[in-house]
Amino acid sequence: MTNPLSIRVLRPDEFEHAWPIFRAVVAEGDTYSYAPDTDLETARALWTTPPARTYVAERDGEVLGCYLLKPNQPGLGDHVANAGYMVARSARGQGIASTLCAHSLDEARRQGFTAMQYNFVVSTNEGAVRLWQRHGFQIVGRVPGAFRHATRGLTDILVMHRLL
Amino acid sequence: MTNPLSIRVLRPDEFEHAWPIFRAVVAEGDTYSYAPDTDLETARALWTTPPARTYVAERDGEVLGCYLLKPNQPGLGDHVANAGYMVARSARGQGIASTLCAHSLDEARRQGFTAMQYNFVVSTNEGAVRLWQRHGFQIVGRVPGAFRHATRGLTDILVMHRLL
Repeated sequence: MTNPLSIRVLRPDEFEHAWPIFRAVVAEGDTYSYAPDTDLETARALWTTPPARTYVAERDGEVLGCYLLKPNQPGLGDHVANAGYMVARSARGQGIASTLCAHSLDEARRQGFTAMQYNFVVSTNEGAVRLWQRHGFQIVGRVPGAFRHATRGLTDILVMHRLL
Repeated sequence: MTNPLSIRVLRPDEFEHAWPIFRAVVAEGDTYSYAPDTDLETARALWTTPPARTYVAERDGEVLGCYLLKPNQPGLGDHVANAGYMVARSARGQGIASTLCAHSLDEARRQGFTAMQYNFVVSTNEGAVRLWQRHGFQIVGRVPGAFRHATRGLTDILVMHRLL
């Protein structure tokens, strides 16, 4: 019997708990635009400087995934949330990204956001695209060659959106 | 006979030269997501913190317009530039936005960018949409209701793109 995931907000000074996953995901160079050698302090600033917040998913005290939640724009666009998800390689295929997505949608609603937008879904990340579609997102844009994929070269990115 | 526009980079400590235009454009609440009461230091940080740069267009010593040029993403997306343009109300209808756009495309090429992307073109700003299309941009996305327009309420935004 597997214990349930527990998801909580990380304080900025706790970002070290998410860092091993962040570092490993970014190093792969196939899903995020962050430089593959992004350092801890840059990552901490990107993911925890208010109004951005980082959440982690833990099971038996081990961090298996994390996500970023923030307004997608300042001011007159801050009713639309933005989020990004990362799962530890060792924990993939267990539905953790789906759990993180569902949690972020609830959390965004709770914070008063009325929509969620992803700006940079790598088009070759087909499992993720399908997963976001199952969570109600639609593809509302496609930018040609906006991502330098580590192995595929210039790759389209998708803009995805849903109301909350 | 009108003297030509002269366009130059502003240092961060010179942002006051662009500030009257920035403040006035943002206060209108119809083209940018920045909060209408954005303060000088926030604007300076947004528009001049490297790698972002602000350029101003001057005629006879008067600043008539300005633009922001920066990478649209960090790391693996930093081959795509992003720009935003502002023209003084008193100087509209003189083709200054078009001159700024052309200058930014040249400047982006010179800096090694291979594409330009606008993330947040307000769909009701039809003159701007047509102008960017004349400069080679295509609409590659449309996000429903992502902008709280000062007078029209929730308004779609467009993502526009061109190769350089």
